[in-house]
Amino acid sequence: MKISAVTAHVKEGFVDDFIAATLKHHANTLKEKGNLRFDFLQSRKDPTRFLFYEAYESEADIEFHRQADSYLTWRDTVEKWMAEPRQGTPYKPVAPLESRMYRYP
Amino acid sequence: MKISAVTAHVKEGFVDDFIAATLKHHANTLKEKGNLRFDFLQSRKDPTRFLFYEAYESEADIEFHRQADSYLTWRDTVEKWMAEPRQGTPYKPVAPLESRMYRYP
Repeated sequence: MKISAVTAHVKEGFVDDFIAATLKHHANTLKEKGNLRFDFLQSRKDPTRFLFYEAYESEADIEFHRQADSYLTWRDTVEKWMAEPRQGTPYKPVAPLESRMYRYP
Repeated sequence: MKISAVTAHVKEGFVDDFIAATLKHHANTLKEKGNLRFDFLQSRKDPTRFLFYEAYESEADIEFHRQADSYLTWRDTVEKWMAEPRQGTPYKPVAPLESRMYRYP
């Protein structure tokens, strides 16, 4: 299982646009076979900062996601609204280990 | 619902100690009434870096967690192994919104 945490910092004035575009991309991503979860979160301290917490069954599923139309369209749409490059970190679980614990009910 | 993402950077040579202490704390935390999830993750790029992805029903549940013996013992135990202060960010969900999507099965 592959878990990714991505932080995004959006320019002032574009938060609503970013949320709308990301909600569409989020709904599409959940339909992808290898996607276990995609939590789309907003900082309570600074509403221009977001976290994407995503889990996939395998590296191949992440590769599929990154080549999907939904991702490419979203990436190009939000590019102009980013205050700085997104930062992604790949993680492996220490606990719990079972992939069913990361999958939406 | 309250979601918290905490990054921890551990000194070289203390990663195994940190994992052992945190696994114990993790198991205790899951027994707390208001805890929905606590994903304990290790960076695939740098094994001295960790992420805690925690969800609680309410602010009161987080307060309970922070005053619990397990947390206080863990905090004091790991203090000497931290390479830098932990960074925590409080988040609110944009999607999905339902707390059942954050709770372990």
